[in-house]
Amino acid sequence: MASLIFTDCSSSTMLRHNHLNRRNGSYLPRPCASLRSTASGRGCTLSIRSSSSPFAIVINGKAEAKKIRDDIKTEVSRMKESIGVVHGLAVILVGENKESATYVRNKKKACESAGIQSFEVLLPEDSSEEEVLRSVSGFNDDPCVHGILVQLPLPSHMDEQNILNAVSIEKDVHGFHPLNIGRLAMRGGEPLFVPCTPKGCIELLHRYNIEIEGKRAVVIGRSNIVGMPAALLLQREDATITIIHSRTENPEEITREADILISAAGQPNMVRGSWIKPGAVIIGVGTKRVEDSSDARGYRLVGDICYEEARKVASAFTPVPDGVGPMTIAMLLLNTLASAKKIHNFQ
Amino acid sequence: MASLIFTDCSSSTMLRHNHLNRRNGSYLPRPCASLRSTASGRGCTLSIRSSSSPFAIVINGKAEAKKIRDDIKTEVSRMKESIGVVHGLAVILVGENKESATYVRNKKKACESAGIQSFEVLLPEDSSEEEVLRSVSGFNDDPCVHGILVQLPLPSHMDEQNILNAVSIEKDVHGFHPLNIGRLAMRGGEPLFVPCTPKGCIELLHRYNIEIEGKRAVVIGRSNIVGMPAALLLQREDATITIIHSRTENPEEITREADILISAAGQPNMVRGSWIKPGAVIIGVGTKRVEDSSDARGYRLVGDICYEEARKVASAFTPVPDGVGPMTIAMLLLNTLASAKKIHNFQ
Repeated sequence: MASLIFTDCSSSTMLRHNHLNRRNGSYLPRPCASLRSTASGRGCTLSIRSSSSPFAIVINGKAEAKKIRDDIKTEVSRMKESIGVVHGLAVILVGENKESATYVRNKKKACESAGIQSFEVLLPEDSSEEEVLRSVSGFNDDPCVHGILVQLPLPSHMDEQNILNAVSIEKDVHGFHPLNIGRLAMRGGEPLFVPCTPKGCIELLHRYNIEIEGKRAVVIGRSNIVGMPAALLLQREDATITIIHSRTENPEEITREADILISAAGQPNMVRGSWIKPGAVIIGVGTKRVEDSSDARGYRLVGDICYEEARKVASAFTPVPDGVGPMTIAMLLLNTLASAKKIHNFQ
Repeated sequence: MASLIFTDCSSSTMLRHNHLNRRNGSYLPRPCASLRSTASGRGCTLSIRSSSSPFAIVINGKAEAKKIRDDIKTEVSRMKESIGVVHGLAVILVGENKESATYVRNKKKACESAGIQSFEVLLPEDSSEEEVLRSVSGFNDDPCVHGILVQLPLPSHMDEQNILNAVSIEKDVHGFHPLNIGRLAMRGGEPLFVPCTPKGCIELLHRYNIEIEGKRAVVIGRSNIVGMPAALLLQREDATITIIHSRTENPEEITREADILISAAGQPNMVRGSWIKPGAVIIGVGTKRVEDSSDARGYRLVGDICYEEARKVASAFTPVPDGVGPMTIAMLLLNTLASAKKIHNFQ
């Protein structure tokens, strides 16, 4: 598959990225013949079309996440007023991975704005597994904490499975405990929590009323965090799933069969227009930092999808940024709210 | 999918079934250009071919299961002589499902012949869930028992998940505990036990040296017992998997993409020749009893695969009977042996 990966998808890349960074304009849902009302929110229905569209719908994850977070804030406040419970979400961050630090910072801000209390343990890269396990155990026993998140990836000298297993399943708001994954995989199984990013992908499909049942869905990537649970979720919704990974031959041929494509490869611009079935819905999860001296941060985020080409073929797609990313944190807060409601038996 | 299901695949069905029931002849592995030595056992390599063969290899599950059971018997005996441990496998059977009763009877015979002690609890159909849970608990605590098998399906008034969860994960030789399934689904996860039927399917592919890595594999059926874990196992071996189920549109089109096809639908003769890619390897798991007054039992077992057609297109296939069936019990004994070795720390 590697030979088919591109770091740029056209000569007009900078133009495209400038375009993608505009906040007001291209990313606002456009009217389209296949929409019943507007493109955003439950009020519309987007059927997967068999023909291409010159103007694909942009699935506005940022706006949907905002709505969800507003609803969560209301519920958190109602619960506090009714039974005096303050929600708590604990994060354990080991080492100095920049992307993890950014995610944790954003999560903290989101908690604050929703009225959820943040707890943090920051451990140095060379911490022992026992130190991490001690922190997990402390949060497991802390009644002020309703959700525990061990930020991945962990340093390579630690046994990730061992640490994830140690998180109390009742507080496993990341949904990475194997018991939650097992229940997710099993028909009739009821996971207490579902991993946040794939849950956010499915939530976007629901909010845009995109039909899943009976559709061909292809997931690129089989990570424990996104690809595998995304495939399991799509299957629970009666899609016919295919999972593409690094050993897959002819990935392009397979993605062209997809009515719904979720890409979580982390390979910039891998999914070109030719990879996409006309009218497909494209959910781009994977992103990578690409050096960019013109950006104040010194990098820009580039997604798996070559959007300039995708928008001419697909019927709808998520952008980078403001696509799936904001939904992940919204789902984390939603799982934390659900955990607190369950623990305190609050309806 | 239902509209494409056939209960018979040609006008010469009876001839075909007579043929399929012959023990000496058609089912013996045949020499073939694609085999390095013989068709049976580790000594041969079967490459998935791109062209059809007039004489597909018959994958002799009965013979392979016999070899495995002989090896198990030797190991069981060695362990008994070395440390005095007698292996024990416990079965809980609720109600009077005939197929379950047959399976339990066969399992008991197989245990006897391998030197493994059988424990059985037979409960009436109207037993309470608590009674089943009490039996599970008793076997969990019994040091003579190394594996516990709750025979499925359970009566509909019982919560299957609840009962499967109650089996100690160290004795979950059926591999149905959600923690084992979760570990099976996760990259880097290490299930203590893998469900027996799909494990048997993969073992047959290994024993016939059929390449899995990078191949397109299609699984028909998404049951917790066969389809889902079979797909997870194929993915662990780096196949690119697609899972077909009752809501799948155009299943025939999808199965024609498969280099390896595992069918666990329980729909007699569903997979016709036209469903099969030339040169594919076909593993037929699903079977159904079909009334047959000419058979002393009053029925015959008919598999998902229309063998008369499949053998002209596929490069290899498992028959019914004597295909995957015997492997299931062999894998159950293998899991029980592994459990006892782990519990007693025996190498």
